[in-house]
Amino acid sequence: MRLKLGMVGGGQGAFIGAVHRIAARLDGHWDLVAAALSSDPARAAASAAELGIDRSYENYLDMAVAEAGRADGIDAVAIVTPNHLHAPVAEAFLRAGIHVICDKPLTATMAQAEHLAKVVAESGKQFILTHNYTAYPLIRQARAMVASGALGTIRLVNAEYLQDWLATPLEQTGSKQAEWRTDPARSGVGGAIGDIGTHALNLAGFVTGLQVTQLSADLTSFVPGRRLDDDAQVRLRFAGGAKGLLWASQVATGNENGLRLRVYGDKGGIEWQQENPNVLRFTPLGQPTQILTRAGAGSWPQAARVSRTPAGHPEGYLEGFATIYAEAAALIAHAKYGTPLDPAVTAPGLADGMLGMRFQVACVASSQADAAWVNV
Amino acid sequence: MRLKLGMVGGGQGAFIGAVHRIAARLDGHWDLVAAALSSDPARAAASAAELGIDRSYENYLDMAVAEAGRADGIDAVAIVTPNHLHAPVAEAFLRAGIHVICDKPLTATMAQAEHLAKVVAESGKQFILTHNYTAYPLIRQARAMVASGALGTIRLVNAEYLQDWLATPLEQTGSKQAEWRTDPARSGVGGAIGDIGTHALNLAGFVTGLQVTQLSADLTSFVPGRRLDDDAQVRLRFAGGAKGLLWASQVATGNENGLRLRVYGDKGGIEWQQENPNVLRFTPLGQPTQILTRAGAGSWPQAARVSRTPAGHPEGYLEGFATIYAEAAALIAHAKYGTPLDPAVTAPGLADGMLGMRFQVACVASSQADAAWVNV
Amino acid sequence: MRLKLGMVGGGQGAFIGAVHRIAARLDGHWDLVAAALSSDPARAAASAAELGIDRSYENYLDMAVAEAGRADGIDAVAIVTPNHLHAPVAEAFLRAGIHVICDKPLTATMAQAEHLAKVVAESGKQFILTHNYTAYPLIRQARAMVASGALGTIRLVNAEYLQDWLATPLEQTGSKQAEWRTDPARSGVGGAIGDIGTHALNLAGFVTGLQVTQLSADLTSFVPGRRLDDDAQVRLRFAGGAKGLLWASQVATGNENGLRLRVYGDKGGIEWQQENPNVLRFTPLGQPTQILTRAGAGSWPQAARVSRTPAGHPEGYLEGFATIYAEAAALIAHAKYGTPLDPAVTAPGLADGMLGMRFQVACVASSQADAAWVNV
Amino acid sequence: MRLKLGMVGGGQGAFIGAVHRIAARLDGHWDLVAAALSSDPARAAASAAELGIDRSYENYLDMAVAEAGRADGIDAVAIVTPNHLHAPVAEAFLRAGIHVICDKPLTATMAQAEHLAKVVAESGKQFILTHNYTAYPLIRQARAMVASGALGTIRLVNAEYLQDWLATPLEQTGSKQAEWRTDPARSGVGGAIGDIGTHALNLAGFVTGLQVTQLSADLTSFVPGRRLDDDAQVRLRFAGGAKGLLWASQVATGNENGLRLRVYGDKGGIEWQQENPNVLRFTPLGQPTQILTRAGAGSWPQAARVSRTPAGHPEGYLEGFATIYAEAAALIAHAKYGTPLDPAVTAPGLADGMLGMRFQVACVASSQADAAWVNV
Repeated sequence: MRLKLGMVGGGQGAFIGAVHRIAARLDGHWDLVAAALSSDPARAAASAAELGIDRSYENYLDMAVAEAGRADGIDAVAIVTPNHLHAPVAEAFLRAGIHVICDKPLTATMAQAEHLAKVVAESGKQFILTHNYTAYPLIRQARAMVASGALGTIRLVNAEYLQDWLATPLEQTGSKQAEWRTDPARSGVGGAIGDIGTHALNLAGFVTGLQVTQLSADLTSFVPGRRLDDDAQVRLRFAGGAKGLLWASQVATGNENGLRLRVYGDKGGIEWQQENPNVLRFTPLGQPTQILTRAGAGSWPQAARVSRTPAGHPEGYLEGFATIYAEAAALIAHAKYGTPLDPAVTAPGLADGMLGMRFQVACVASSQADAAWVNV
Repeated sequence: MRLKLGMVGGGQGAFIGAVHRIAARLDGHWDLVAAALSSDPARAAASAAELGIDRSYENYLDMAVAEAGRADGIDAVAIVTPNHLHAPVAEAFLRAGIHVICDKPLTATMAQAEHLAKVVAESGKQFILTHNYTAYPLIRQARAMVASGALGTIRLVNAEYLQDWLATPLEQTGSKQAEWRTDPARSGVGGAIGDIGTHALNLAGFVTGLQVTQLSADLTSFVPGRRLDDDAQVRLRFAGGAKGLLWASQVATGNENGLRLRVYGDKGGIEWQQENPNVLRFTPLGQPTQILTRAGAGSWPQAARVSRTPAGHPEGYLEGFATIYAEAAALIAHAKYGTPLDPAVTAPGLADGMLGMRFQVACVASSQADAAWVNV
Repeated sequence: MRLKLGMVGGGQGAFIGAVHRIAARLDGHWDLVAAALSSDPARAAASAAELGIDRSYENYLDMAVAEAGRADGIDAVAIVTPNHLHAPVAEAFLRAGIHVICDKPLTATMAQAEHLAKVVAESGKQFILTHNYTAYPLIRQARAMVASGALGTIRLVNAEYLQDWLATPLEQTGSKQAEWRTDPARSGVGGAIGDIGTHALNLAGFVTGLQVTQLSADLTSFVPGRRLDDDAQVRLRFAGGAKGLLWASQVATGNENGLRLRVYGDKGGIEWQQENPNVLRFTPLGQPTQILTRAGAGSWPQAARVSRTPAGHPEGYLEGFATIYAEAAALIAHAKYGTPLDPAVTAPGLADGMLGMRFQVACVASSQADAAWVNV
Repeated sequence: MRLKLGMVGGGQGAFIGAVHRIAARLDGHWDLVAAALSSDPARAAASAAELGIDRSYENYLDMAVAEAGRADGIDAVAIVTPNHLHAPVAEAFLRAGIHVICDKPLTATMAQAEHLAKVVAESGKQFILTHNYTAYPLIRQARAMVASGALGTIRLVNAEYLQDWLATPLEQTGSKQAEWRTDPARSGVGGAIGDIGTHALNLAGFVTGLQVTQLSADLTSFVPGRRLDDDAQVRLRFAGGAKGLLWASQVATGNENGLRLRVYGDKGGIEWQQENPNVLRFTPLGQPTQILTRAGAGSWPQAARVSRTPAGHPEGYLEGFATIYAEAAALIAHAKYGTPLDPAVTAPGLADGMLGMRFQVACVASSQADAAWVNV
């Protein structure tokens, strides 16, 4: 069945709003029918017209009320605002009985996050957090491989997320993207650690199933005048004894969107890179490394379930994002209309978001204490 | 504006039909509202129901007539049948005044192709052939680079399209995909040369702008009992003196969908591989090789125009295919509704298809003459 | 035991002479004690002094006679002159009873080659031709894999040797290396086809064990004024039905020393690239591709026998060349002093050289006949 | 001129002794004429005979005295014993007036290191430490690039050295290599941190010229029963504000000899991997990444000086090691015989060794204090 989607944020010039719209369309589960695309009413209306969205609202509060009151109202809202608005917008829609699909990180502050957690619990509605990287087919497979014991006991986890787009003081040159991401009032306590470090953490946890117990973080603002960290180096200790390194940087010159995961166990190891995501390197200890490809020889059902094309036909970032929307559709249709639910459906949600917030806060606390160990 | 799409072929179990549907949805230009998904009426109906398509037809002739007669009839039809049906289906819709988006190769036989060419000309309608690989952003850039003289005079062109899915007699095991692709009655005179060789030829021509004048082809059916070629090695001579090699194989063990292009000029060279399409290697003669990335440093406007995400967020096969549908939408909206047309819009069409047919026929003729040179 | 080596050619400024000297030293089997390093006596003497070679000769004829007459005379001579001198120099030493290690190609002309073949046969001496690429450990392994049936019946062989150093008329700018390699009087009938094409042919034959029966060659001189081919595209037919493509080019902009081999059989395929020679990709049909590394998991005894360091410690061009000298030492010590010989020792020799000459001549003949098929 | 070399350690079955011998031979600067190859006299004699070394000694003390007393005595001794013997052997030869080439790390204990430092100073002799990875041509170039300002101010340094050969308790299975490397009595306080971590540190310091001021280390012995660390994760702070991560592991399943360096500055970044050492990735901020190749376009004189072959002819581990021996020969010939010295000659020595020892000790201290910051 097709569901009806609303959107808050994501007007002209925003990157992630366009991504959510493509992701919602790609598998045909959603129609975008309502939106409050900008806090600037003129811009909101112009954006909606350009996108052919029938119901354009001047603010999200009106939208939540109006949509809840319509027989053909939206089934879910996608929240693609800067971080500090995630919580109030989500609350408005959840209180109105509307399911939520929210961009990460969860909120700008821990207080917001804790409040939102209560609201979600009280609402009984679905809350999907778009940690899209967990939806790459070979990441699904990697998770299944770890769970199956193919790597043995995990010893080492290395997650990197390296970019260079903030290697200069871009926020001082009028870049909207750079401005809010380096502004504590809109982003929260974390810069790189929040924007991309949470993705790396989420990916590592998703694949390994391991729980971080302690961390030690060293955050740096390399660019003069920058108010949030643009480099974060975090040591992780996991329950059970595994150790990890997480490195998130937005000043690593020469890296575009270098999310990379390496997991080494006592029976095998895997390596994966987001920029060429259709390949997973797997080394069973003492045997040659195998190149596992999405949908190719050596692919697992968990990868096939979220693949759309045969091996050798590269799927990328938007397909992974679309899988989040497909899984969200399945969960919300099940919740709202009772459609049957494939037990394999999984999507990141509130718990992932809360962990991301606790992680950010712990990193900042650790870094302020000169990288002391902090419990998570 | 949103256009209305119909589809012929592409019922349950077909690969390319699903690809066309995703491609049509991805950018939001098309609504799929009518279809004749299978020549088996029950299967057609079931497929349409599963896909939520309102108007399901038992055969394409009825569909063409009915849709032409409706005020809300389709703006274009997507043809995703086996090759031998491309011509009659296209003719039915063109005669009914409906624009056509057709999978490649153009037709199964040269006679069909010539007839279709006349029908297209008489119809005055758009005819788009989905040579999707030309829509990869870095292929658009490569074409612009060659045209700009960045490579100097082109000397050598090497196009490979290597697969291994037909390395065994798969067509004897019940594989629908393998059956029709190895059946002369449904595929035409070419096996690998038609199915994938035409893609390689089209890509080479699109990027270099060079015209093939002569070729010498050596086609082989390596798998016992196979009726069409599963390996094709073709030497190309281009107007102006450049030389080329085109190798299409479906028995190259270890290759999934290995389309690769290399172009060497007297001032520079480029290399590109479809399986990791967000990277283009460019070597200005005597300088270090540069890694040009889609939407990254060194990307050109021609790549940016058909990109959806920033550098490092991999786009793949479906995005390229979607660009064909986006360009088709622009062309058809312009033709039918007079919407303004960006002069940069380009899409493969009848001429590409005719060249592909002449190429196939010439390859078969050359091969039968022990790889003698044949004019194209 | 240590053997005594002489050298003809390879004075100051020559590339390949220095390579032979390093190769001879690397494993400690040879002492270079005598030389005629240049046809220019002053240059010969200066070069010898610089290299600390005790016995320097003004010409190779004197050297052959003198060394043959000494109790401590050389065991073998290394010939590293331009091609047209290989035959007379080799003859002088063979007639004097001295074993020969000769750079490839065998000679400049077929007549020289046939004469030399007789001389070698009459001499009963070892004649080693330094087709060094066959000595890479993973090439030895690849050969063993093919022989073992791991790839099944070979269907396709693709050998490329791409360079770009002659993309401009370098021979007109005073480059000694470029001058003789583009001069028919010193190189023979083949340009790229002789200089590097013979390496590619030799490598393909070494690995596959297949015999070329027919070829069709298209040779081109792209650079204006060049007298020999700088690009050679050759179709190969092998006994048993396998087909091959060999592409040798010295104008492929962006390629340094791109020797690459791909072999596809009905049970598996392999891919190897000389520029990163410690890796061999192997795909058993229907299974994931394996990354076989020199001396790593998945390496075979045939690779280990000619490896010097553990996996991950890259060995390169000079090590392969040194293996030729090590094998030559074993063969010559056995022939001359009766030392025991490991049956695994193998080195390219006269037969390889004769095949290379027939290949070149056939390529030129075919190309002159517009790429007609020629028997080899 | 050719120098005379002695060797202590490196008898049958030792890996690194054979490497030193090849390195010494490769460029023809050294003749190995004397040795005490094993502490077991029979094994020492047998090894020497096998290697054709004339003067074999039963112990290194006798050797030092005897060689010092001969007119044709050795110019230098190569020490390739387990770590705990480096100091006493070096002392014996230095006291005898013989130059020393010593494998790393410097010694097993800090006390030994400090004592040795005094001995070296008193002796006035050359002391070369074979941190061979600094001799790769592109590492020489990387150092020059950083020094020239091509990367701007360095912000981030990442050095990894990942292996997996100790992922199992190999030392319990009779492996001589594993035994002494995991034995504190023979290796010293560091396991992975000493064996390979010191290489990574040395490489990072060599390339960046930065001085470590503080570190925080987390050492782990993952394999049950292992007495030394097999994984070391070290945070580095450099004078001037740059930050670094150093990760040395011998249990990173799937890694053979994965030494990798990444350096990011405010104007550019570089990446290099030892397993494919002929390539250096360089990204000038905001421009496409360049593939710099050894001796190819974009190579610097600092790389060319230590290259032996043209671009595309891969040089590897042994060539880098040989460069250390070539530089050692130049330094020792200059010191002992007054031969002219190229000012570009550089070789790692005592200072590098002392830094490596302080580093190891600091890592162990930090790790014992739960990864507290420790001054270096």
